[in-house]
Amino acid sequence: MRFDDVRSFPLAHGVSGRPLFGAGAMLNVIEFEPGATVPLHSHPHEQLGLVLRGMQALVVDGVAHELHPMEGYVIPGGVEHSAYCGPEGALVLDVFQPVREDYRARWENPTAEA
Amino acid sequence: MRFDDVRSFPLAHGVSGRPLFGAGAMLNVIEFEPGATVPLHSHPHEQLGLVLRGMQALVVDGVAHELHPMEGYVIPGGVEHSAYCGPEGALVLDVFQPVREDYRARWENPTAEA
Repeated sequence: MRFDDVRSFPLAHGVSGRPLFGAGAMLNVIEFEPGATVPLHSHPHEQLGLVLRGMQALVVDGVAHELHPMEGYVIPGGVEHSAYCGPEGALVLDVFQPVREDYRARWENPTAEA
Repeated sequence: MRFDDVRSFPLAHGVSGRPLFGAGAMLNVIEFEPGATVPLHSHPHEQLGLVLRGMQALVVDGVAHELHPMEGYVIPGGVEHSAYCGPEGALVLDVFQPVREDYRARWENPTAEA
């Protein structure tokens, strides 16, 4: 499948995702518009990922970790984190296990409230 | 972490991987030298992925699926597959869940037989 052909869904203001769902894990190609941020949140799912373009900073315990292309990360389930990107925006591959069923529901029903 | 700083391990002749291990899933950035192939194999782990550079073809049930940058795939656990790349080689992100403990053992003990 081509991620460009996948309908995107909003993750935060200026941040959208294009998901690929497996049985026990999923990919989500997320695009940050310049200056966009993801507020502090957590989820029980383990999250891993890789920056594809631009800069994404992941903030954990008040420490910002700036990630550039071909830099990866692991966030254990339940760990609070927020994110921001650089002035040029960013393209990031996120991986979740297990599947984020909340994302699936939002992606399949785009008219529902995010 | 920077994938470029991760020690690579051999996956097949002309194919190497740079892993990032989570608790329940892992990333593996794999590099195909031009013309390299991965023989037919299977594993119980679910595999998802995304082509980052070049062309990777995944062959399932005798059908070759040619994947180009920003094209993704899911291979359910237990499904036999092989792979080949184009003349320019390829860079691919593979995701496995659960973690490939066989990969971890080979990566942690690079002198052992692949």
